[in-house]
Amino acid sequence: MPESPVPVNLAERLARFSDLWAQKKVADLNDYEIKLAKLKGEFVWHSHPETDELFLVISGRLTIRLRAGDVVLDPGELFVVPRGVEHCPVAEEETAILLVEPVGTLNTGTAGGPMTRAAETLDGAADRVTPAPAG
Amino acid sequence: MPESPVPVNLAERLARFSDLWAQKKVADLNDYEIKLAKLKGEFVWHSHPETDELFLVISGRLTIRLRAGDVVLDPGELFVVPRGVEHCPVAEEETAILLVEPVGTLNTGTAGGPMTRAAETLDGAADRVTPAPAG
Repeated sequence: MPESPVPVNLAERLARFSDLWAQKKVADLNDYEIKLAKLKGEFVWHSHPETDELFLVISGRLTIRLRAGDVVLDPGELFVVPRGVEHCPVAEEETAILLVEPVGTLNTGTAGGPMTRAAETLDGAADRVTPAPAG
Repeated sequence: MPESPVPVNLAERLARFSDLWAQKKVADLNDYEIKLAKLKGEFVWHSHPETDELFLVISGRLTIRLRAGDVVLDPGELFVVPRGVEHCPVAEEETAILLVEPVGTLNTGTAGGPMTRAAETLDGAADRVTPAPAG
């Protein structure tokens, strides 16, 4: 019998890592990934031609620079960067965010460069329940 | 020139409605919707054969009953109910949640019944920026 399913506690998962600009997967949703990241400083201008990208700020403050203007996100605020829109995340203080995007979306989009990192999995991220037999 | 893009403040959006078990769309992510809902009481057992469903608790406490056992979510905790898994959300106190699932996912899945409601859009939910011209 499988163990009882458990939720993903975001604060607990954030406490497990300290590296900046690394995306840590905490859950799967169909062919999407739910990821956490800690940011501080300025990232690189980039875009994702194939997908929108959701940012939700958990702690700190995130500025998403866009050619149309800056979007400033405090905790409890989210923003979806549409596909193809150039953006550059900037955080003056250390900032924790939740990301939702399709599996395989690179953090630097098509820009590449030394900050490019594939998403990593935190232990326990794959907690899923098994469908019970019908009836 | 478009207005500066603005983030979605979850608390501000939650303050705009009070009806229970209604899903209010606050953002689009490709062919997925980001929705808010307020829950109190017991929903109906149902499943979504075609999709996983993400629950993130913002305030209150949500119990997701599964045939494999209950999952109890406090604020800052998320859980993905896999496709095809029967579940029944229950909230003893009023609870606010964020949902992520494909456009058109019905709240009662294949169970139907009087609690079935399509997602509604809160004013301002469609704030999106227009891609800037290349170059």
